[in-house]
Amino acid sequence: MKYCFGIDVGGTTVKLGLFDVEGNVLDKWEIPTRSENGGVNVLPDIAEAVKNKMEQRNLAKEDVAGAGIGVPGPVSSDGFVNKAVNLGWKERFNVEDKLSALIDMPVKAGNDANVAALGEMWKGGGAGAENVVFVTLGTGVGGGIIIDGKIVTGSHGAGGEIGHIHVEDKEEESCGCGNHGCLEQYASATGVVRIANKLLKETEQDSVLRSGEVSAKTIFDAVKAGDALAVKVAEQFGKYLGTALANISAIADPQVFVIGGGVSKAGEVLLDYVKKYYVPTVFHGCRETRFELATLGNDAGIYGTARLILDK
Amino acid sequence: MKYCFGIDVGGTTVKLGLFDVEGNVLDKWEIPTRSENGGVNVLPDIAEAVKNKMEQRNLAKEDVAGAGIGVPGPVSSDGFVNKAVNLGWKERFNVEDKLSALIDMPVKAGNDANVAALGEMWKGGGAGAENVVFVTLGTGVGGGIIIDGKIVTGSHGAGGEIGHIHVEDKEEESCGCGNHGCLEQYASATGVVRIANKLLKETEQDSVLRSGEVSAKTIFDAVKAGDALAVKVAEQFGKYLGTALANISAIADPQVFVIGGGVSKAGEVLLDYVKKYYVPTVFHGCRETRFELATLGNDAGIYGTARLILDK
Repeated sequence: MKYCFGIDVGGTTVKLGLFDVEGNVLDKWEIPTRSENGGVNVLPDIAEAVKNKMEQRNLAKEDVAGAGIGVPGPVSSDGFVNKAVNLGWKERFNVEDKLSALIDMPVKAGNDANVAALGEMWKGGGAGAENVVFVTLGTGVGGGIIIDGKIVTGSHGAGGEIGHIHVEDKEEESCGCGNHGCLEQYASATGVVRIANKLLKETEQDSVLRSGEVSAKTIFDAVKAGDALAVKVAEQFGKYLGTALANISAIADPQVFVIGGGVSKAGEVLLDYVKKYYVPTVFHGCRETRFELATLGNDAGIYGTARLILDK
Repeated sequence: MKYCFGIDVGGTTVKLGLFDVEGNVLDKWEIPTRSENGGVNVLPDIAEAVKNKMEQRNLAKEDVAGAGIGVPGPVSSDGFVNKAVNLGWKERFNVEDKLSALIDMPVKAGNDANVAALGEMWKGGGAGAENVVFVTLGTGVGGGIIIDGKIVTGSHGAGGEIGHIHVEDKEEESCGCGNHGCLEQYASATGVVRIANKLLKETEQDSVLRSGEVSAKTIFDAVKAGDALAVKVAEQFGKYLGTALANISAIADPQVFVIGGGVSKAGEVLLDYVKKYYVPTVFHGCRETRFELATLGNDAGIYGTARLILDK
């Protein structure tokens, strides 16, 4: 066994990687996700891509350990996907069995955020650690909990649903999940924009954000430039996220938190605001827990799925 | 291998159990904990108790798989105890190696709250499940997180430090840990008494609690009798604990929460107040998570340590 495939299925593209067993990526490419017609073509398209690559590189079946696949939806530990709306999948079925039959090799499946966490643990911001919590701050807030090198899937596929940690009793707007006061409402890209727009509306305070676009990027750029209103946004963001991560430490106590997703492009300044609230709130034994920025970007998923199948 | 020992070391007594490998307790007894002189006698006393029992029952070394030991302090996954103040232990040392040398059999060690969680998973309120969160509401709030049948120890021994989840920004009094607003300040036996005394002082509201002792027991007795002020205490207790457990679900997503400790003697009424706040706050996938009362009482530790060594 010298190789494996890592496959990260998104709503518009499928990212694929060919890896050696040490986790070096030898080749990576993308195919479109054909989610129409209930997504019937998604897995056959992937199978064709895998077979083509094997032919192109003259890989024999015996050379390949298998394929890992990450999908945007809850995946049970035995490989069942229970709906993946973005892929058009409306039925519950075993994605491991189905893809395995198509490509004639072992397949192991996981949730996309969870496999990204595994990727960052293996070859990214958490490399060298086995207890890692990955938080992705994108349109929403996702994440994954890795304990002793294994994903915490959870009994209802809700392990690592970090975005839905309750952090605010007084929130009146609904989160996408239907609850009120979820972390995602404050720490996602849309969340920080929401905080900023609220402050802009409620106060008269001068700010560069009053002219031009208000986005996670412009907000953190303004923070770096010392804009007082933007700093208030960062403080709120840091308080909600820092406190939530402190509570994760009192439960799972990771060695390192890895922060990724679009918002994390702000860089170290973002970690500073999170740590400012994490350190005084967390249980004393966990004050020294490391914080790192994610390093694999959009490739975290293919690394994680490769790891998933190698570790099967 | 037919037998094993489970040993739960407390500040005043050591509880011991002889188990068969199916987890039936064949014998249980106690010896005093001699914590004076830096606790030098604690492990030799345990060793003598184990040897005496083997002699008394004519057990050969080959019949015994080993001993599990639970201690009140952080225990690393490789058996190091870093201070156990209640036992007089002030140095960091490997308790597994030390006890193993004294009794000439394998030893596996764990934190007392974590092994109690393992015991409740194995033979108590969580029997049949492999993903269990145990919460013990005593003088403090402790707990243990069990994922796939294994204790989550954590990178700094802080896995399952449920009592130090931050739940209130506005608290002015300090928790025993030095922080402010920890779950333990509201959901422990002392915590509910503190909530009650505050309400008694701040309001003029009539209550049976105005005459006689205010304890976790009298408070929940008053709740059952419909005392309006006591109900307010239970609501606050339920809100803090229910929200904290909802957040545990968004991280570790257990099949079942098992609630033990002195406060839990109030029975089902306590679970009702917790679920009242858990259900609307938790991520939707986890609304059906089960809540059970602990069933092993003070024996949870010996069951858990027996399981620990059998599962080594």
